[in-house]
Formats: sequence, structure tokens, C-alpha cells
Amino acid sequence: MNYTSIQDIDDIHTWVEEAKQLKANPLADIALGKNKTLGLLFFNSSLRTRLSTQKAALNLGMNPIVMNVSGDAWGIEFGDGTVMNGNTAEHIKEAAAVVSQYCDVIAVRAFPTLTDKTKDESEQVLSSFVKFASVPIVNMESATGHPLQGLTDALTISEHAKIAKPKVVLSWAPHIKALPHAVGNSFVEAMQKMDVDFVIANPEGYDLNPEITKDTPVYHNQEEAFKDADFVYTKNWSSYDNYGQVINTDPNWMITKDKLGAAKFMHCLPVRRNVVVEDAVLDSDSSLVIEQANNRTYAAQLVLKKILENG
Amino acid sequence: MNYTSIQDIDDIHTWVEEAKQLKANPLADIALGKNKTLGLLFFNSSLRTRLSTQKAALNLGMNPIVMNVSGDAWGIEFGDGTVMNGNTAEHIKEAAAVVSQYCDVIAVRAFPTLTDKTKDESEQVLSSFVKFASVPIVNMESATGHPLQGLTDALTISEHAKIAKPKVVLSWAPHIKALPHAVGNSFVEAMQKMDVDFVIANPEGYDLNPEITKDTPVYHNQEEAFKDADFVYTKNWSSYDNYGQVINTDPNWMITKDKLGAAKFMHCLPVRRNVVVEDAVLDSDSSLVIEQANNRTYAAQLVLKKILENG
Amino acid sequence: MNYTSIQDIDDIHTWVEEAKQLKANPLADIALGKNKTLGLLFFNSSLRTRLSTQKAALNLGMNPIVMNVSGDAWGIEFGDGTVMNGNTAEHIKEAAAVVSQYCDVIAVRAFPTLTDKTKDESEQVLSSFVKFASVPIVNMESATGHPLQGLTDALTISEHAKIAKPKVVLSWAPHIKALPHAVGNSFVEAMQKMDVDFVIANPEGYDLNPEITKDTPVYHNQEEAFKDADFVYTKNWSSYDNYGQVINTDPNWMITKDKLGAAKFMHCLPVRRNVVVEDAVLDSDSSLVIEQANNRTYAAQLVLKKILENG
Repeated sequence: MNYTSIQDIDDIHTWVEEAKQLKANPLADIALGKNKTLGLLFFNSSLRTRLSTQKAALNLGMNPIVMNVSGDAWGIEFGDGTVMNGNTAEHIKEAAAVVSQYCDVIAVRAFPTLTDKTKDESEQVLSSFVKFASVPIVNMESATGHPLQGLTDALTISEHAKIAKPKVVLSWAPHIKALPHAVGNSFVEAMQKMDVDFVIANPEGYDLNPEITKDTPVYHNQEEAFKDADFVYTKNWSSYDNYGQVINTDPNWMITKDKLGAAKFMHCLPVRRNVVVEDAVLDSDSSLVIEQANNRTYAAQLVLKKILENG
Repeated sequence: MNYTSIQDIDDIHTWVEEAKQLKANPLADIALGKNKTLGLLFFNSSLRTRLSTQKAALNLGMNPIVMNVSGDAWGIEFGDGTVMNGNTAEHIKEAAAVVSQYCDVIAVRAFPTLTDKTKDESEQVLSSFVKFASVPIVNMESATGHPLQGLTDALTISEHAKIAKPKVVLSWAPHIKALPHAVGNSFVEAMQKMDVDFVIANPEGYDLNPEITKDTPVYHNQEEAFKDADFVYTKNWSSYDNYGQVINTDPNWMITKDKLGAAKFMHCLPVRRNVVVEDAVLDSDSSLVIEQANNRTYAAQLVLKKILENG
Repeated sequence: MNYTSIQDIDDIHTWVEEAKQLKANPLADIALGKNKTLGLLFFNSSLRTRLSTQKAALNLGMNPIVMNVSGDAWGIEFGDGTVMNGNTAEHIKEAAAVVSQYCDVIAVRAFPTLTDKTKDESEQVLSSFVKFASVPIVNMESATGHPLQGLTDALTISEHAKIAKPKVVLSWAPHIKALPHAVGNSFVEAMQKMDVDFVIANPEGYDLNPEITKDTPVYHNQEEAFKDADFVYTKNWSSYDNYGQVINTDPNWMITKDKLGAAKFMHCLPVRRNVVVEDAVLDSDSSLVIEQANNRTYAAQLVLKKILENG
């Protein structure tokens, strides 16, 4: 099995319960991964994913091997039939097949271009690994999804929900740089599978891919969306329609203690303080961001466990 | 407990004896760190510290996870209340708390600016980790101290002392670049706790921070300081008064076989040959530099052992 | 013992048989390397060697510690008697001796300059480690040799040979960059020890070092050389006579399915598709490149096993 998208989760409620059990007893399966190797390939920077996925592997007794592809090796070619007389020195066909010789599972991080929508939506890097590797692939954030984060967030909401069907808001917030849609997309897909009252708030021009949001209500009025919210999940993303553009940095969309009210604040991190959210939120008991970070370990561990069990 | 400074050592004589026992039997405590993770965060380059601290962790059965913060992740913000619309993407408040979710102990290396004395003396990076992490912190060389090196040096001197109270000289030596005071400071603090006759030799304008040297005699005449020395510990540092400046590269301060006489030569490495010290010293039996490097493992192992035992 | 060259193999037939046994039962010796550390020092990029050598170490129960020398540390000085007031901060005398304090075996990758033949042939980096380290050294590709690859290739040919004495051709192929001779050299040396009918094909001006090729036939006509070949091992290298120069990029030397006929195709990878070899070869059953990559693990494992057993 691969884990490339939230859509790979058959029943998110079962997965969340299983993740809670792992969290309660993280070393219960330490014999499962004995003498198995997890290769972590980073085409982009990483802190949480890098550390939590290694920790998850160690909890299962696996040996993690980390590789920064750009810094440690060379440019990889993805084109079909390319005459490779340029900057790329190895084709993904070989690279993926070769890494499969040394690793029992391969985890990959590769961000989008944010300039070429078609290329990004083809998930060139991730889908090439799926195609050409001979071992299971785990998505550590790809061009359009971050399903380890989405599973983490479902777990965190389940742990902190005080009512049967809490209201969850995904709110865009301002940022100075053009950021990917991956976290937003996977959160949407995860919430669509949960028993929650889920809405999205973003400025006009910032609607996410409608093929992902489907019939989830989208508000362009943040205040309206936040009414009676139990959880406010915040994330910046660049425009999808004006692909990869920053068309709005309106500070009125920053999350404040006032806006948040009694709701819990969530963010995948890293977060720019006083741009995305004010200090008063992050430094209060309303913030779940550190617990989210902790849950990254158990989301990754559950995925790796299922892969080790199912091959 | 944290280990951020030589001042965290309650009784250096006991610690040195304990380190000798670890060295005699490095794997005696291999069960102690089982399933515990040491995160090693490098904001700066490292060879000895990188390898010896990992080796120390492995000797205790711990899993080391290495991260080059600048290369593997992104800029970290330390300011309080900063509006993070610049180059930093994550605040130390989150970064330290997050890494604490995955690591049982965090070791940090972060060099000084050498341009901003106030900032350097505030030990911004190290003290922020102490403040915001929820697990013990080990200093792998900070702006003003290198206490794993200082403990190493105390161990090495104890092993090689032929008399009850040997004479130890810390001598400045020339260098082409502006170097930190960290090694010098921690050596001074370590020697002040040992039963040694300790003096410092450096050119005028190169006195270390008087709050650290206290009543340790400082000679501006190297020859006078070296009289009857049993150990000459050599290190370059930039000016403390003219903070971070190179005001003297006088080759007469280079350590030679003639100057050294019967004394043992010590240096933390890396060392520039024929600038700091001549080949004839390093290539002779008078040099203890490789034994110092070896002892780095046992200093780190003792510190980690105490942390694992005391939490 | 060190493993720096194919010439360190006493009997290649025995080694190949031992490697096959390891491949059949990779974890049989997992107790052998317990609590032993392999230091992998990369002065240059690496993918296969990086991963396969770590995997080999893990199969033997060793702890691998990886270090990118240029990125993680600082410039290393190799000159004798140098006054180190330039860009290098540590001498190999100290560096090699220091790493030996933390690692039971040191593996080193350091490519040639391709501009200074004398320096490259002196194998400055590798031979300095052999000279100044106090533990065994493994060559992970040096200026003039890649003996882990050569042993791998002997294993792969032995596995796939259908007749007692197969014909093996080493063929130069075009490339846009100046590449080292290391893989070609070690393949030549390995084949000279095997029971094969071995010839080399390269354009005029591309003859390898005659002290290595010795009496191996060299054809400047590729078609003639390929007659009745069972294995075609392909590799680009820059000119040896016009040292490090690219004097020919004739696409007629590219390997095609037509040229290959019934022979098996081999390459150490990475390979530039449709420059060195056409897609139709790599994507066919004639290609052994992924099996070669897999065998890298067992070549490295055999070398490490012998070192652990013999010290």
C-alpha cells in the first residue's frame, strides 16, 4: 500500500482510534519494523516532518535513513524520453528503482512550483515514485497534499472535541510569501470524512480547488464563518485561480484572540507570529499547535505500521 | 537538568572520576538510553562535536537524530513580539516546543555573532531553548561557552597530571580570523574548579571577560607565563574589549617546541598548523590533542547519562 | 585491513561466492557489528553509495554516522608543512586521527580534480586517510578507483553469466561533462581477475591509463568490439591523455538496442538517458542496472564483514 492522499484512508474514525492507541503505547509494535529501513527523501526543507517521521520509524524499530536530495545528490529528470544533456544527471526511473533496493519504505517530500498548475496537479515527483519504486511510498507533503498532517489534525480534533459534532473552520490568513495549497487541501479532505460541521473562510480570489472543496460551504466573510466555531484551523495559501499569486495580504484576516472566542486554535506550523496569528493566541491555552506537532509522530507511525503489516 | 555551562558541574572531581569509569567501560549503560532520542541541532558547522556526541549517545543506547538547522529547515525568529514578515519563518517558541515532542534530550550548537556583545552574552539561542523546550538541553558550543570541551579538558589533564597540583597555562595564539571566546571561557571555568596552578597568557587587548577570569592571573608575557608549565592549553580568540576584532596576529605568540619545553600541548581542534602551533609540537609526543578528541565522547556520555538518570 | 582498490581482493572468485551467500542471507552476521560505528565521509555527492553502504552496515548491526564534509564541517588541508593561513581550517593529520576516535571503520568518497593528473593519481584524500587514520578505510570512490562498484560488477556478471567464460566489453559512451576514470579503472581491474573474455572499446584519445589496462585489448571500433558480447558495461570518462578533457561527444557511440543485440547492458548509474544509452535499452530486460544497484549492498557488506572479522 501507498499513503499519498487522505483518500487512501478507508475509515478515518478507525484510523483515529488506532492512532490514539499507538499514542497510549508508542513502543507496542517495536518488533514490527526490526531490520526494516525507511528512506526519507527531502527535495525541500523540513523540521517537524523530518523529526516526527524518524521518531515514528524508531518507535516501530525501523532504521531511518535521511537524504536531502538536492544537497546530497544531483538533479533528477522526470521527463519521458528526454535527451538528458542538461542539468539533470539521473532519471526518476532509475532513482526510484534504485532507492527501492535499499529501503523497505520510501517517504518523499517535494513541494509544488506554484507557477505551473498542470505540472503541480500531476504530482510529478510523488506519482513518479509511486510508478517507478518497487516499495510503498509515503507522502511527506507533495505539490497538492499533506496527508500525514491531515490525519494528525483529525486525531487532534477528535481528542479535543467536547461535543459529538463540533464546528470546524478552516480559515485562510495573510502571509507575505506564496504558499502551497497542500495543507489546506488535505485538511479539507480529512474534515469531509469526519463527523464535523465544516466550513471554509477565505477572501475572494482564494477559493481552493473546487474539485477538493466540493460542497463544503465557503465563506468570504471570516466573522460569519467563525460563529459558534469549536476549532479554527488556520493556514495561508496562495491563490488557486490566479495560480500561485499573492493577491491579498489583508491584516484583517489575521487570527486574534477576539475573533477566536472560545474556539481552539490549530495550525500545522511553522507559523509567522503576528502575521498569521497574534501572540496572544499562540501563547494561550486556546492553542493546540504543539499538541498537533506531537500527534505528527502517531499519524506517521500509524501509516508506517499499516504499511509494514500490509506490505 | 540542563548542561549549558561549566557552572552546571557541582563537583568536577567527581565528574572526572565518573568520566574515567565510562571510558574504561563505555557500554556499561547501554540499556539506559534505550528508545530515547537525542536531537542534535546544528546552527553551525561541526566535526568533533557532531561525531563524538552521536557516539556518546550510541554508547548509551540512544537514537541520535541530526539536523542542520540552516540547511535542513529555515530561519528561526528569537524576538519577542516580532511581526514576522521578514526572513524568519518560525519562532523559537514553537521550534523548541516542537522538537521537544520528538526528542528526549536536545543538544544545540550556535556560535556568537562576534559583532553584538550584548546579544552574544544573552545567549539568545541556547537560553531560548532552555526557556521554551520541555526537555533537557545540552550546550554543544554556544556564544560564550563550550562546556563539553571544558569537561573533556579537565578529564584529559587529570589523566596526564604527574604531580598533585600541576601548572596549567591557557595561552592565546595567533589566527587570521575572528574566533569566539567560548572554548577559552569554559576552559577557564573548568580550571578554576580543578586543583591546578592556573594562569592565562595573552597579548594586551586580548583579556577575556573579567567576570569569567576573576582572580586568575593574566600574563601579557608568554615566556613568563610558561615557566614550569605542565600543560599549555592553546586557543585563539578575538578581542573581548574591542569586541570580535582581530587586533594582533603576532607570530611570536605561536606555540613552538622550544617554548613548550617539557609541558604537554593541548588544543580543542580544529587547529591551523604553523599559525597557532608549529608542526613539531603537534607531531610530537608532547601533544595531547587526539586524546582530547577521544575524551569528547566520554564527557558527552557523562552529561547524557546524568540527564537520563535525573531527567 | 583497508579496502581502497580492487587489488585488495586476494581471490575475486571466493569474494563473489561469499557475496552471493550474504545476499541469500543478509542478516546472518547482524551480531558482528553490534556497537560498532561506520563513519561515512562524503567530500562529494552520492546516492547509491550513500544508501547502499548504510544498508550494508545496518545488515551487519553497525551504526552508520554520515557526514557531508564540505557542508557539515570546513575545508581540510592536505599539504605537508603548510602554514595554514588560508581557506583550510583543519589538517588531515588531525581530521583522520580524530574521526578514528569515534568510528570503528571510516568510508571516504572524494572525487578527482580532473585538472591535476599528478595530484589525482597520488590519491591525496584517500591515501591521507589510510596514512593518518588509526582504523580501517573503505574507498567509496576515490580519484582513480571505485572498488565497491568493481566488486559489485563482478558479482552481477557472475550471477548472470550463461557460459563458463562470457565475453565482457567495457564501452565508453558520450557525455556532456568531464567524468572521472574511477569506475572504468576498477571495472578493468575486476575483469582482469575474472574468468572472462574482456575487451575495451573507446574512441581514439580516450584510452584509459595503460598501467591499468595492461594487455587488455582496446578497440577504437565499437562495432568490432561488441561482436558476440555477453555483457556490455558502459561508462563515460574524460580523456586520460588530454587529462580531464572532453574531446569527443560523438552520438554514434551511444548504446542502442541494435548495437547491444543479445548482450546484457550494465552501467553503474547515474546514467543520462538518450545520451549514454537509449531508453529502449534501459527499459528492456537486457538491462541489469537495477540489479547492479542492489548488489552494491552486498559488495559493501562483504567488505565491511571482512574488516570486522580481520580488524
